[in-house]
Amino acid sequence: MPGNTIGERFRLTTFGESHGPSIGGVLDGMPAGVRIDPERLQAELHRRRPGQSNLTTARKEADQVTLLSGVFEGRTTGTPIGFTIPNSDAKPEDYGHLESQYRPSHADYTYDAKYGFRDYRGGGRASARETASRVVAGALARQFLEQLYPKGPFPEVSAYVERVQDIAMPTPPAFFAQETVDAHAVRCPDTDTARRMEARILEVKKAGDTVGGSVVVVAKGVPPTWGEPVFDKLQADLAKAIWSLPAVKGLELGSGFSGTLMRGSEHNDAFTGKSGNIRTTTNHSGGIQGGISNGEDIVLRVGFKPVATLLTEQASVNQAGEDVVLSGRGRHDPCVLPRAVPMVEAMVLLVLADHALRQRSARL
Amino acid sequence: MPGNTIGERFRLTTFGESHGPSIGGVLDGMPAGVRIDPERLQAELHRRRPGQSNLTTARKEADQVTLLSGVFEGRTTGTPIGFTIPNSDAKPEDYGHLESQYRPSHADYTYDAKYGFRDYRGGGRASARETASRVVAGALARQFLEQLYPKGPFPEVSAYVERVQDIAMPTPPAFFAQETVDAHAVRCPDTDTARRMEARILEVKKAGDTVGGSVVVVAKGVPPTWGEPVFDKLQADLAKAIWSLPAVKGLELGSGFSGTLMRGSEHNDAFTGKSGNIRTTTNHSGGIQGGISNGEDIVLRVGFKPVATLLTEQASVNQAGEDVVLSGRGRHDPCVLPRAVPMVEAMVLLVLADHALRQRSARL
Amino acid sequence: MPGNTIGERFRLTTFGESHGPSIGGVLDGMPAGVRIDPERLQAELHRRRPGQSNLTTARKEADQVTLLSGVFEGRTTGTPIGFTIPNSDAKPEDYGHLESQYRPSHADYTYDAKYGFRDYRGGGRASARETASRVVAGALARQFLEQLYPKGPFPEVSAYVERVQDIAMPTPPAFFAQETVDAHAVRCPDTDTARRMEARILEVKKAGDTVGGSVVVVAKGVPPTWGEPVFDKLQADLAKAIWSLPAVKGLELGSGFSGTLMRGSEHNDAFTGKSGNIRTTTNHSGGIQGGISNGEDIVLRVGFKPVATLLTEQASVNQAGEDVVLSGRGRHDPCVLPRAVPMVEAMVLLVLADHALRQRSARL
Amino acid sequence: MPGNTIGERFRLTTFGESHGPSIGGVLDGMPAGVRIDPERLQAELHRRRPGQSNLTTARKEADQVTLLSGVFEGRTTGTPIGFTIPNSDAKPEDYGHLESQYRPSHADYTYDAKYGFRDYRGGGRASARETASRVVAGALARQFLEQLYPKGPFPEVSAYVERVQDIAMPTPPAFFAQETVDAHAVRCPDTDTARRMEARILEVKKAGDTVGGSVVVVAKGVPPTWGEPVFDKLQADLAKAIWSLPAVKGLELGSGFSGTLMRGSEHNDAFTGKSGNIRTTTNHSGGIQGGISNGEDIVLRVGFKPVATLLTEQASVNQAGEDVVLSGRGRHDPCVLPRAVPMVEAMVLLVLADHALRQRSARL
Repeated sequence: MPGNTIGERFRLTTFGESHGPSIGGVLDGMPAGVRIDPERLQAELHRRRPGQSNLTTARKEADQVTLLSGVFEGRTTGTPIGFTIPNSDAKPEDYGHLESQYRPSHADYTYDAKYGFRDYRGGGRASARETASRVVAGALARQFLEQLYPKGPFPEVSAYVERVQDIAMPTPPAFFAQETVDAHAVRCPDTDTARRMEARILEVKKAGDTVGGSVVVVAKGVPPTWGEPVFDKLQADLAKAIWSLPAVKGLELGSGFSGTLMRGSEHNDAFTGKSGNIRTTTNHSGGIQGGISNGEDIVLRVGFKPVATLLTEQASVNQAGEDVVLSGRGRHDPCVLPRAVPMVEAMVLLVLADHALRQRSARL
Repeated sequence: MPGNTIGERFRLTTFGESHGPSIGGVLDGMPAGVRIDPERLQAELHRRRPGQSNLTTARKEADQVTLLSGVFEGRTTGTPIGFTIPNSDAKPEDYGHLESQYRPSHADYTYDAKYGFRDYRGGGRASARETASRVVAGALARQFLEQLYPKGPFPEVSAYVERVQDIAMPTPPAFFAQETVDAHAVRCPDTDTARRMEARILEVKKAGDTVGGSVVVVAKGVPPTWGEPVFDKLQADLAKAIWSLPAVKGLELGSGFSGTLMRGSEHNDAFTGKSGNIRTTTNHSGGIQGGISNGEDIVLRVGFKPVATLLTEQASVNQAGEDVVLSGRGRHDPCVLPRAVPMVEAMVLLVLADHALRQRSARL
Repeated sequence: MPGNTIGERFRLTTFGESHGPSIGGVLDGMPAGVRIDPERLQAELHRRRPGQSNLTTARKEADQVTLLSGVFEGRTTGTPIGFTIPNSDAKPEDYGHLESQYRPSHADYTYDAKYGFRDYRGGGRASARETASRVVAGALARQFLEQLYPKGPFPEVSAYVERVQDIAMPTPPAFFAQETVDAHAVRCPDTDTARRMEARILEVKKAGDTVGGSVVVVAKGVPPTWGEPVFDKLQADLAKAIWSLPAVKGLELGSGFSGTLMRGSEHNDAFTGKSGNIRTTTNHSGGIQGGISNGEDIVLRVGFKPVATLLTEQASVNQAGEDVVLSGRGRHDPCVLPRAVPMVEAMVLLVLADHALRQRSARL
Repeated sequence: MPGNTIGERFRLTTFGESHGPSIGGVLDGMPAGVRIDPERLQAELHRRRPGQSNLTTARKEADQVTLLSGVFEGRTTGTPIGFTIPNSDAKPEDYGHLESQYRPSHADYTYDAKYGFRDYRGGGRASARETASRVVAGALARQFLEQLYPKGPFPEVSAYVERVQDIAMPTPPAFFAQETVDAHAVRCPDTDTARRMEARILEVKKAGDTVGGSVVVVAKGVPPTWGEPVFDKLQADLAKAIWSLPAVKGLELGSGFSGTLMRGSEHNDAFTGKSGNIRTTTNHSGGIQGGISNGEDIVLRVGFKPVATLLTEQASVNQAGEDVVLSGRGRHDPCVLPRAVPMVEAMVLLVLADHALRQRSARL
């Protein structure tokens, strides 16, 4: 497939550029009978929306999603869910000067190299605005997963900002409820850390510069059995989904790179418990063994680079290979992390929903 | 698809368990007209083979690959290449005691949970022996990539062991020729570091314990234009391919997690050069921008956990949920890293070959 | 994938129900640089539109397509083309009585059986209205194919109504230009036959009944080399595409069923010509040999059943298994064939565009 | 994907040329827990085997299948089933003279055109020998389907030769048990018709000529609900699978082309029965409505052309475009139909197994 689709049985295709009339997508594979609460879709979109606090870009998008199909009388019908999100605050005139210039660490040059020319308005298809469609689909996946086990615990996915540059949470990765995470604009659940992060971001913003950091995402309540050996291991599909987000520089599962410093005798997760409720005493595995979920929390850490768009001058070249000086215009985030939280959750939710369905074919 | 296939246009399907008659695979999508040197396939397999040095398992496998189709008079025909690698040194009696027991941090429990029962001999399908089929396909991909540009630099992929536990290369990631890497059994190109790594592995082996570390892989000569936005970004497909290997705990691209500590003004890669030869002065991007290769070296770091099979006693549980004590038997590696080098190369080669073909549809 | 996507490299996903706010689709894989004429998209949609003559349903749909992405300054950018077609003349009140009733030879019963309930308004997702999205994508494929060989003959696809019930063209299948086909409302290029067909349809319409027949589609100018052995033979992908249309009962390639009455010595197509221009003297093969186009016209015949919706009373059952009498309401076609012509063309165009791109990977 | 794989959740990839060391395949997606009887696999292969009667080619192949993986202690494990079938009676010297010549209505010319050269021995990849791998996979699918409903009717698939040239069964399509079909070498269940068919085939064989005809295949016991609107309609996937077989010229579902002569009031299938057991009084629909099985028999008719290889002289051209005279050598079938019966069954079985699994995702 050409590249704008993800998932096997729960399958999202997105379309749209940042400054065209609309972005949107088609979610195919949603089973019939899932009750959909459209307000919760919108609430998730608002978590990703630009302009939500002084930590993010000033671009104001209503980010209003319209479902065009696949839901009838409040429930999914088993047919594809088409949706659009109009681009309401597009200012293409902010970008006209970029037609032939290559912004450092953006996709301008590679798009030109690949396709011969590009929609240069605001990054076009390469804009992070495309992720709004993922957030809608992730929110639909969340409602599916919540209704999957009527009697009981259902898979929950929550992410938070663990670190901004060198300012980090003092505690190891854990599950935090969305209210706790969203209590601070920076989406770090620890109040003291959150304050220091916010101060850093505002300081950097004032300097016209940007910062990165890391997001932790935890999925709890995933039953053992999800994931398909050998190439579609659960961690492999999660890795692909997360690395398809813009600005990702690193990914860790469970013990991550620090686990590679241990000896096997320290790192192995001992089994315990009774038949029907087998657990591990530690979770260095990060909830996945042999490519299949083992019932423990799935724990991932995602590193995001500092945003490439600066409001200071930068030297660069143009299509003709001439030296140019770029001075940032437009409205941009000094730090992508607070808005990355719902994006990371969406990608994890999409992969889990897919494997929930794929698992149904594992046995006679 | 069920999970044993990777790639879109250059597509590998593998089959086989560690103690059945044979493992193997089908590589579909190899273009017609590629000259195949079977000895080089075999040479790559030998790099992954168990028993190649005192740093690896004592299991001895001939690992002899037979091509069954798709090559005629020394050249590929455009039809699928089927191949088998017989299991010659299977000792299933080493594993009978594991039928109902769950080895810590292995796939025993999750396979039972998913499928209801499992082939318990040597890990069955979850055995790292499956990766031999990937190495064959990767070696075929390498020959395709070498012949892709008759006049010019062709994509080359080389990996090496950068770190064993806390013993690390003193220099940043770089491309090293295979001869340099293979000069030491541990596959670290720096002689002093290699010696210290080997000593550590032998020390740990003596203790019946295991260690992990990291592998760096560099692809040079990849032209700009490979990679498909938005979900099939080049780094997303590389991430999936690498995370589908056993024992991976972390992945970094370019500047990786340390890049997330920088400010944007430090991290951005400045463009330079002339039209037709646009380059960047630094390579924090790791050779990929906007999901598309930019012509710089593609640089990835992969963290591997310590091998889970120990030759010491471990407490665990069995299917019935009863406590058991496992004492490792069988023949196992104290450190997976030297043999992981050809596996990592294979996965990168497969992804690059796939995107080399996918790129052909980018323009009218 | 769940079922609403077709094609590998040129890939259409559709969504939408007949009485929701909008239908639409995403075409992914269109190469960059194709000049798009939106008026020609609209013209193709008008050929499929209801209410275009007294031979078709009285339902009036503007069928106005809006492209949302993927085209910039008149040319495709290589990114997905999202589009919507609003449902402007939906009268769901025509269908409320069908909520629990099963119309004979419709999808009502099978959708209920599969999904547990259904959007009962006008057939919902099973409505032939969904094919409007295919016609848009087919029209985009046509523009791509026309620009594929700047110097030279390009693939052209044209279909026509060959037979309505027992009233058939007097001549064997051949290529007719669209103007000739569209000269008569029934889309039969032979004037005398067209008149008799139209009389028959009006007679049947008056009786509240319906008729079927056959459509012939011819693709000329397809170069040798398109099609992928063994499962994705060109005829196999054409067959799937055409059989995915509603109401298809039969398909023939080249000599079709009548070819199965011949002996091999009569049926074989003799080669002739010079190297670089090898042709066959007859075309029983229908332009495809071994799953690959051979440069001759690709000739298919498609049989369509009489429309299932009647304006007379029919006995049926409801969800509860009770006997009911249905009397047709709504606005329906007495004969689907004139409007099937652009649908069949669209499916052939989509498959050809896909294989035009897939062919690019055949050789080193 | 490149073209040698079929199915989404129950997925067959085949490899191999007629005169290489071995053909074979990988069946991925078989659920765990299916008991496999290897003798029944072999028995199905024998039905396809050359040399089984004086109606078929004299080529003698043992056609012995070896399962290499995926089955442990008699049951499937959920991992891919790899298998090989060695080519034991290859006589490549029969084909050396064809290296540069193009046999009429074969794939020689199109393979050369597509790939630049070809494995000319016995048709290479284009040989019908490839279908042996399909028969193995179809036989595995049959065992899966038989065990799908432990309590109750399970899907059964049976095909037979309905017509050889103009000699046809006197009765409409129906389900015949395999014993009845196989009672005659020609695989027609009607004794009188079978004798006349056999006489015709022997007469034609004596003349060095060939004949075609039609095969009917019936699937009974398929529950309502299998099939995925809109592109993966059950009939669309069946059509693709069947049209991927060599020599197919036509396909009909249910009433087929003769149904296109009826009026809607005659053609509609009236519903009857009670909730939980809704049936139709006629079956013009051929068991599928709206792309989904409705519980009635699925009835397909497949037309096969006369075999292209003749044992008489034929004029043709070679690669250089020079006129040549071909005189058939090798060992070939005068009529493909008796051996096509198990091939057609296999393709239907593969599609049904796939949709049996896909259906599991239809509802929450």
